[in-house]
Amino acid sequence: MKKRVAIVGSGNWGCAIAKIVGNNCTHHPHLEDEVRMWVFEEMVKGRKLTDIINEEHENVKYMPGVKLPTNVIADPDVVSATRGANVLIFVLPHQFLGGLCKKIKGNHAQDCIAVSLIKGVHFDSKGMVLISDMIKEGLNGMDVSVLMGANLAKEVAGGAFCETTIGYNVEENGKLLHTIFNDPLFHVTIINDVPGVEICGALKNIVALGAGFTDGMGLGDNSKAAIIRIGLMEMKKFIQSRYPSVKDATFFESCGVADLIVTCYGGRNRRCAEAFVKAGGRKSFEELERELLNGQKLQGTLTIKEVMQILQREGIVDQYPLFKSIYNIAFEKAPVESMLATLGCFELEQVLMAKNQFGQVVTKRTVVYYGKAGDRRAAL
Amino acid sequence: MKKRVAIVGSGNWGCAIAKIVGNNCTHHPHLEDEVRMWVFEEMVKGRKLTDIINEEHENVKYMPGVKLPTNVIADPDVVSATRGANVLIFVLPHQFLGGLCKKIKGNHAQDCIAVSLIKGVHFDSKGMVLISDMIKEGLNGMDVSVLMGANLAKEVAGGAFCETTIGYNVEENGKLLHTIFNDPLFHVTIINDVPGVEICGALKNIVALGAGFTDGMGLGDNSKAAIIRIGLMEMKKFIQSRYPSVKDATFFESCGVADLIVTCYGGRNRRCAEAFVKAGGRKSFEELERELLNGQKLQGTLTIKEVMQILQREGIVDQYPLFKSIYNIAFEKAPVESMLATLGCFELEQVLMAKNQFGQVVTKRTVVYYGKAGDRRAAL
Repeated sequence: MKKRVAIVGSGNWGCAIAKIVGNNCTHHPHLEDEVRMWVFEEMVKGRKLTDIINEEHENVKYMPGVKLPTNVIADPDVVSATRGANVLIFVLPHQFLGGLCKKIKGNHAQDCIAVSLIKGVHFDSKGMVLISDMIKEGLNGMDVSVLMGANLAKEVAGGAFCETTIGYNVEENGKLLHTIFNDPLFHVTIINDVPGVEICGALKNIVALGAGFTDGMGLGDNSKAAIIRIGLMEMKKFIQSRYPSVKDATFFESCGVADLIVTCYGGRNRRCAEAFVKAGGRKSFEELERELLNGQKLQGTLTIKEVMQILQREGIVDQYPLFKSIYNIAFEKAPVESMLATLGCFELEQVLMAKNQFGQVVTKRTVVYYGKAGDRRAAL
Repeated sequence: MKKRVAIVGSGNWGCAIAKIVGNNCTHHPHLEDEVRMWVFEEMVKGRKLTDIINEEHENVKYMPGVKLPTNVIADPDVVSATRGANVLIFVLPHQFLGGLCKKIKGNHAQDCIAVSLIKGVHFDSKGMVLISDMIKEGLNGMDVSVLMGANLAKEVAGGAFCETTIGYNVEENGKLLHTIFNDPLFHVTIINDVPGVEICGALKNIVALGAGFTDGMGLGDNSKAAIIRIGLMEMKKFIQSRYPSVKDATFFESCGVADLIVTCYGGRNRRCAEAFVKAGGRKSFEELERELLNGQKLQGTLTIKEVMQILQREGIVDQYPLFKSIYNIAFEKAPVESMLATLGCFELEQVLMAKNQFGQVVTKRTVVYYGKAGDRRAAL
């Protein structure tokens, strides 16, 4: 029995992944050739997007210039797209999930499994909800894995070498997904950890805001690396305190440190945060999002708001000095220099940005307290 | 009894650290005010370098523009510089160690401890020797800690915020060193791990060569992050297989992931490796070192040669595909694209560099084998 794979979603990441999955399904004896891809139907220059994809094998709107394998068939109807599917690949904004799952339910094969490529986490009145758990709940308890990694969509579609991580609950399902996604240029590692892989993909965008702030201030490589490292530690603490089963090893995978590096050096969260500092308080993140992102959404600001709500409710904000400081800078008009101040073991009296003798920007303080109370001294 | 601190070395890293240590010794009740710094005497524009430092409080040759605290006293005689010292800070090329230790021995205080800021490892006929062990051996078994981190000297001297890691054997000594080095802008973490901290500081330079190769090829962020991550894993494997006591946690410290990031984005090893690729095989690393580094030495090429000798002797080269590939590219005329090929789970028949539809550089292969033997397919 060949496995039938369906892709739910067709944005830029969906198309990049459709190229790899489509290729693998053509060549592998245990996979059905045809891969149906659910496409949110829209008109593009007077033609249906699904018609364009099926005739020209290209999503001209969301991933122009990339040819999809001819066995990837665009389908505007999610019921027919997922009929009889053994594997569902979810790659779309999570807002769509509720409605789609209702239609998909019961329509797929009995043994169907799912994998979520959706970045972000959802928050409801009870706290954090994993997207993979939302899918599981929407589909009668189906087993749901996740795939996350240092995977800028355009580079994956263009055939640049990269790695990714699949987090699974059931090893057999992880192995099947490895077969479906792995490619010489898209190197998949599977690990038995769904929450670790998934939450890394959400929290990294918070850290990228901090990295963007250091770029905006013109600080050097040391400071940026320190912010990235401290951010990784706060991600780790946040995840492991909620999911004690998550091992340190997860953070060494592509979904952990590698994705964090890519997001803190490239990526739109970093870019908007840099612009935020350079605008000197004259522009909000909402304005910058509209100006710079051409309709795409900023994940980091959304996620930090939600994470702060959780931390405040639990009364543990102070255990996350970097997250707290990024929030205060982004939404509470805290000066951007305060990000570094909160990380040192000192109380801040006055921070000024200044250039040092090499023309590097540094924070300059007139008087600081640090160490034990009373141990006051002049610094710098 | 106040502790007397002496610094052995006065290059750019030595001066950056002398600024912090000097400040701390002025202000701390348990530390002697005066800090002697051994300086290799040389004439600079007709004056002795020690005189210049003691009169102008600036090492005009190796760290011009940075004022040292007035309690840091340059001394050309290592015996008087270290007389009665309770703490010795070693920060100089390790080639000098043998001769200096002979002079220092017995001259310091009874309870004297040392800390090594020397990057790199030494190799002799028996294999790898830690610099901290060389110091220990040279000084009658003295306890030696190490300090390593994401600390570009110029940024530290300029007052940019950064973090660093001290690896200790004896907790009490780690705490004393924390007092001597920690500063609001130079945030020290102490961990009970000398070899992990020390060897990270050497091996990161190998990985930086790989990162530079991706830059030279014009590959994107995904590929570079993958190389950095795989490099971190090979560092971890190399260190933990030799020192099983080294914990994963060490690699999350500044000496691990943060220093690696700084070295792979800034740093001279990365820069020379990029230039090596761009020269298209017309220039050796020795030539590039002379052209680009103005007398400074390239650590990465030295270290990879030594590491490869060890791996070859032990017959485990294939367990380190990235290190192996970096070595082959640097010294065996392997094509630079082979670095990516060796990382995938495939055998390579033909690799070409090509630009994709976005103008990104990618590796393009005509035929590859991958997965199980016989599972041959056309790719890309």
